[in-house]
Amino acid sequence: MRGFNDLSELAPEGVEHLLQLAKRLEEHPEPRALEGKVLALLFLSPSLRTQTSFQSAMLRLGGGSFIVSPASGIHGLEIRPGVTMDGVAGEHIREAVPVLASYADALGIRAFATKESLDDDVEDRDFQAMAELSSVPVINMESAIRHPCQSLADWKTMEDLALPRAGGKFVLSWANHPKALPLAVPASTLQMAAMRGMDVTVLRPDAFALPETIMAKARELASAAGGSIRESDDRHEAVEDANVIYAKSWSSPRHYGDDDAQREVKKELAGWCVEESWFDGAARDCRFMHCLPVRRGVVVSEDVLEGARSVVIRQARNRMWGQMAVLYEILKEAS
Amino acid sequence: MRGFNDLSELAPEGVEHLLQLAKRLEEHPEPRALEGKVLALLFLSPSLRTQTSFQSAMLRLGGGSFIVSPASGIHGLEIRPGVTMDGVAGEHIREAVPVLASYADALGIRAFATKESLDDDVEDRDFQAMAELSSVPVINMESAIRHPCQSLADWKTMEDLALPRAGGKFVLSWANHPKALPLAVPASTLQMAAMRGMDVTVLRPDAFALPETIMAKARELASAAGGSIRESDDRHEAVEDANVIYAKSWSSPRHYGDDDAQREVKKELAGWCVEESWFDGAARDCRFMHCLPVRRGVVVSEDVLEGARSVVIRQARNRMWGQMAVLYEILKEAS
Amino acid sequence: MRGFNDLSELAPEGVEHLLQLAKRLEEHPEPRALEGKVLALLFLSPSLRTQTSFQSAMLRLGGGSFIVSPASGIHGLEIRPGVTMDGVAGEHIREAVPVLASYADALGIRAFATKESLDDDVEDRDFQAMAELSSVPVINMESAIRHPCQSLADWKTMEDLALPRAGGKFVLSWANHPKALPLAVPASTLQMAAMRGMDVTVLRPDAFALPETIMAKARELASAAGGSIRESDDRHEAVEDANVIYAKSWSSPRHYGDDDAQREVKKELAGWCVEESWFDGAARDCRFMHCLPVRRGVVVSEDVLEGARSVVIRQARNRMWGQMAVLYEILKEAS
Repeated sequence: MRGFNDLSELAPEGVEHLLQLAKRLEEHPEPRALEGKVLALLFLSPSLRTQTSFQSAMLRLGGGSFIVSPASGIHGLEIRPGVTMDGVAGEHIREAVPVLASYADALGIRAFATKESLDDDVEDRDFQAMAELSSVPVINMESAIRHPCQSLADWKTMEDLALPRAGGKFVLSWANHPKALPLAVPASTLQMAAMRGMDVTVLRPDAFALPETIMAKARELASAAGGSIRESDDRHEAVEDANVIYAKSWSSPRHYGDDDAQREVKKELAGWCVEESWFDGAARDCRFMHCLPVRRGVVVSEDVLEGARSVVIRQARNRMWGQMAVLYEILKEAS
Repeated sequence: MRGFNDLSELAPEGVEHLLQLAKRLEEHPEPRALEGKVLALLFLSPSLRTQTSFQSAMLRLGGGSFIVSPASGIHGLEIRPGVTMDGVAGEHIREAVPVLASYADALGIRAFATKESLDDDVEDRDFQAMAELSSVPVINMESAIRHPCQSLADWKTMEDLALPRAGGKFVLSWANHPKALPLAVPASTLQMAAMRGMDVTVLRPDAFALPETIMAKARELASAAGGSIRESDDRHEAVEDANVIYAKSWSSPRHYGDDDAQREVKKELAGWCVEESWFDGAARDCRFMHCLPVRRGVVVSEDVLEGARSVVIRQARNRMWGQMAVLYEILKEAS
Repeated sequence: MRGFNDLSELAPEGVEHLLQLAKRLEEHPEPRALEGKVLALLFLSPSLRTQTSFQSAMLRLGGGSFIVSPASGIHGLEIRPGVTMDGVAGEHIREAVPVLASYADALGIRAFATKESLDDDVEDRDFQAMAELSSVPVINMESAIRHPCQSLADWKTMEDLALPRAGGKFVLSWANHPKALPLAVPASTLQMAAMRGMDVTVLRPDAFALPETIMAKARELASAAGGSIRESDDRHEAVEDANVIYAKSWSSPRHYGDDDAQREVKKELAGWCVEESWFDGAARDCRFMHCLPVRRGVVVSEDVLEGARSVVIRQARNRMWGQMAVLYEILKEAS
């Protein structure tokens, strides 16, 4: 496998293989599989789960990793192309990425959306530019529009819980949040549920409709897998018979990058906090999913988050098993 | 062993076993003992020795670790229960702890006293609440009232130096310090010396008498081990025939959490800086101990700290060997 | 090998041995060579390449490392001798260094020039004082006047590219920079090229002549190796037939530690930015070298930096292979 950037770049058998490999490694440890192998982890945005699950994943396979982040005592990094570097930043990403890649067998990169241009972010231009600088396979640890490691973990979580694929009902619901968050998780989650062949509803206020490029790709994937995609702003109708409510906040694409307008459009939306009453009409054992970190009392009530429906800790744990499968595929092949 | 929180939770044979295991690992390396095992280290308070000695301990046993701290580029952590998270903190400790535990085979937690309530801190409520969230064994890396890893290292240090148990004289002396420090080290040190069966004197100005709960527990442990506990504010009398002077600053429990009052009560106490003259009347080869970090010229004079009596570097080194024994017990058992 | 502080402390065969060992480890991995071995890395100055290449080096040899830096959530470190520690710093380097050494099999230290005294920095007094506190072999990860790991990597880079030793022409050129940088890299680079038996020209504006102690030592080393050293402020003459232009900025020794004067003396020197025209008259395949990080458009133009002459990424990658050889020599011997 040459890197890991987008679940939809894999054929269905490719995803199936990763899920089975993740399960195998969970059940049968291989603590020497990646002996002497090194994973570089470059974080241009904050992380808790991602950095720790990747570190643990490499350790459990007998390899190791190192982390570079703005918090790790490095010279400031310049990202803009073509700039005369007479300011604060001491090093350009055009050296930093190839150098880090040169010390490693694979390179993970996290770079959130800059939210300057919706088109650039949907095309994932910044991440692609960085990935092209690497001489070793690149793993997307969340870019402007993708979070494939999260999606793989979420898929595995639904397998673990035996949630139905074809015929299963998946609700991706917008939720309130004090910040204007990126589109990476909703876009990846939508695509993942579509690839899994589920009947997916995107439940969101009108101003939060996802960009048409993203919706169109999801419809195409759903159609190939035997599922469906629809949108709604009516919660009661949306959650009917749902097997999963997956909550996530995201920016209004209509006001992308405009923080004042984002606050304005959310003014009347504090009710978009998932509570037990949201599950009226859903399947009896409907699950609550979220990628974490989550704002209690804003995105979801404490009782739902800590209740029996919630599988958020399992989702987080599956980050590790899923990434172990990805690393195994990339690095075993290379040895 | 299901975690490591308090030396007194172990039977005497339990401590003995850890000491012997630590010595064995010091003399006979086992660089593959914990292959594929992962230790998560969560620091809510600063650390030098603790983070590095735990990292080294795991590496020497063939396993690995990862660190999460406010310095490591994570989302801000919320600790207060029941709060609506519409502020700065992006993640609650009630998710962060189970998630980190889910990536690891054991979890170390450091969380200093908040000093808002003496009772809460003496009961170690914050730490207990966090520890309960972990699905894997928890190691106390210093909480409001405990520092068992330091105590195990200190005990081993006295064994290495063949300092007498029964009949040995141990002086725990308060010392000056610019800050109002927590009670964890004095409480744990007192308890450790008591469990070792020594005759222990707590030397401190009147305002720095330790809470009665702590003294009572120490008396009980001393009595079971054949030693004794007393308190004094008279240095000359206290150090008579002492084998060890263990210096440490701590807050005045009478003014707990009140920084102004703490400064006020220390105004005339600059003389509580251990100097060579303190050892007049002590055993000829009386040792100087301190857990580090230490303030030179405030807690202890430079000549004592760097002189022949001082065993502070050995104490620090024994953190590693002691913790290796703890990790071996917890993680070998689990495999 | 008892540590690694200065390439010139090695006999020619010693350097040869390290180069061959580096090449062997590059071609034939030994992922268990340093099993159970631990490297402590103490950074008092920022780092990207150094921290990541040392981490990767240990991992590739089956050992591990830990990092301590001002960014890693430690108590503030006091460096001044004999001070009463009643201020902010909670720990003195005189405890921190022996403690870190006690957890490790070797200790890397980075401490840039304080630029308070040219003599102290040229004598490397601060670094020497710290190194003497360690009970295990010390590796210089860049001190006030030395950067031996960089020089070993640079030497290996020239070997990889089959650049001539005797008769080869090496130009060390001063370059512009917004900051007043230390002398460690120019001093080490000059010495390395001299030891390699090359004909070396230091190209610099008059105010940037290197201290006579450094020049004298370089002449001595060149003479022993069959090469030569000269200085010039005439670029056209200096680069004639050159095989390498190695660019680096450094402080004017005449105004050492005086930031205002440093800015003043650089006012007319913005032309000291390496461009393709600099290579007129040089050997056809003359290489561009730099230790990184580098300021684009200030030290070197983007087209030279990213062009075919540039070997900066290879230099950076050779940090890892060179350090693996150093670690192997130090730690295999110790086992």
